[in-house]
Amino acid sequence: MQTFDLHILGCGSALPTRRHMPSSQVVNLRDKLLMLDCGEGAQLQWRHTGLSWMKLGHIFITHAHGDHVFGLPGLISTMGLMGRTAPLFVHGPAQLRPFLQCVLANFCSDMDYAVEFLAIDTTRHAIVFEDRSMEVWSLPLDHRVACCGYLIREKAGAPHIRRDMLDFYGIPTWAINNIKAGGDWTTAEGEVVPHARLTTPADPVRSYAYVSDTKPVAAMAAWVASTTLLYHEATYGDDELALASKYCHSTARQAAEVAAAAGVGQLLLGHYSARYDDEGVLLAEARSVFANTILADEGLCVHVK
Amino acid sequence: MQTFDLHILGCGSALPTRRHMPSSQVVNLRDKLLMLDCGEGAQLQWRHTGLSWMKLGHIFITHAHGDHVFGLPGLISTMGLMGRTAPLFVHGPAQLRPFLQCVLANFCSDMDYAVEFLAIDTTRHAIVFEDRSMEVWSLPLDHRVACCGYLIREKAGAPHIRRDMLDFYGIPTWAINNIKAGGDWTTAEGEVVPHARLTTPADPVRSYAYVSDTKPVAAMAAWVASTTLLYHEATYGDDELALASKYCHSTARQAAEVAAAAGVGQLLLGHYSARYDDEGVLLAEARSVFANTILADEGLCVHVK
Repeated sequence: MQTFDLHILGCGSALPTRRHMPSSQVVNLRDKLLMLDCGEGAQLQWRHTGLSWMKLGHIFITHAHGDHVFGLPGLISTMGLMGRTAPLFVHGPAQLRPFLQCVLANFCSDMDYAVEFLAIDTTRHAIVFEDRSMEVWSLPLDHRVACCGYLIREKAGAPHIRRDMLDFYGIPTWAINNIKAGGDWTTAEGEVVPHARLTTPADPVRSYAYVSDTKPVAAMAAWVASTTLLYHEATYGDDELALASKYCHSTARQAAEVAAAAGVGQLLLGHYSARYDDEGVLLAEARSVFANTILADEGLCVHVK
Repeated sequence: MQTFDLHILGCGSALPTRRHMPSSQVVNLRDKLLMLDCGEGAQLQWRHTGLSWMKLGHIFITHAHGDHVFGLPGLISTMGLMGRTAPLFVHGPAQLRPFLQCVLANFCSDMDYAVEFLAIDTTRHAIVFEDRSMEVWSLPLDHRVACCGYLIREKAGAPHIRRDMLDFYGIPTWAINNIKAGGDWTTAEGEVVPHARLTTPADPVRSYAYVSDTKPVAAMAAWVASTTLLYHEATYGDDELALASKYCHSTARQAAEVAAAAGVGQLLLGHYSARYDDEGVLLAEARSVFANTILADEGLCVHVK
């Protein structure tokens, strides 16, 4: 199965602690890297992943709060120093543009690569990027500023060729691509061997949804229905439900309710408030609603499967 | 002796590594905290020192390169979230102003404290700040952009009162401040006891100089003459003398030559290029010129004495 990994660079919230860094993640989908949010220290955390800077083509930012963007200046500068030439695309709410422009104008004038900002309409659930491997959808969130999460869904792969059938019918290699694309095979005797006999189905399509920061959004369960892996912010526990509501965040229980309603494969909690020395309480509350829940942590790599 | 400590938050150079963070330091002088440079991650490193954010009154920035300033947005924001109300003064070259203004305008509009920027004339060696405890002097540096180091010199303390003499002459406590300020004591019999018999000399004045980033500056040894502790950038070793010259940096040997010519108490090396996996080579080269040299490292606390 092709690579689809999530690397957690930081899963704390606005106040950094000795234990957690601000929000940032890297998704490795078939060896293409996407970054989701870029809190301070993201480039330092990246160093520990062993991933190549040069495979990072797109950064998706949820909102223009410092703990989700203050790593951008350092990351962008460092890739310039490393000699990057390929353009980098930064997607996010329009509110991010002045900061990015200021950084580029004051610190990046001698870089050999371009940084292009693409504003996201955070009020719409729509495809905001796609290539041959994936679609990226915006997920409108309800936070104190314009904010959206992202759903990354891989595109369906080709069916798997049955080697035993190739041998049985003596099918030459030049014909394989046509069969993968859906074609049948006609033998020298004129017998048509249907596509379905020559292949097994493609791998199931996998997806990853990143939902941070937000209070519960009614449509979310529909948008992330059957998602393989859901990261949902869980800034607070049941004890701080009022704070969660006041600051437009979610509790661990609310995150789990989304996971349950959406029927996701696995729930990953993060964006912990600095008040929790041990996120075990958040995990327990979430698991009481949705059993297959785990805690994000710096350095964690989750295989999306 | 009153506190005069240097805490190293980061001592790497432009390219962060797994081992070193970008430049940032905190000086604790009599429980007042000054920050010198603020590279990315400074607020995260600060957490490990146990120092109080609220005692930080002034930040001195050497120059507007990312590895010396990209920690400012996070640090300033975090102190706002922590409820800071006391103003914060940021000193540095005028080139820093647009970045700071952009950060304050876009991320800090709801903070309860003011950040005031004070431009430093990086071409002059002059007092740029003083209070009852210290003077801070600018040290013009020769780098690729406007840049200056800083010399922090404590002001002379009061002489120490000799308790045995107080007892001998029956001197009341109300008279002590006058004696500390230089006064004599006149006994009931009219005998004048001179100040010098009642006191021992004040502690020697200590100083710390922070010199980064720069190629060798002819006047530096005079400016930092007899400094207690000198931090001097040592980006390269003898093997990369040409690079040091090209990028306006210093080698470890050049740093040590300044220390020797200035007759400082101790030399602290830092701002290591990412190419050195082991700074032992830099230390050896410096020690061949100036024996009392040590290597900066993240988390190191040096007592200035």
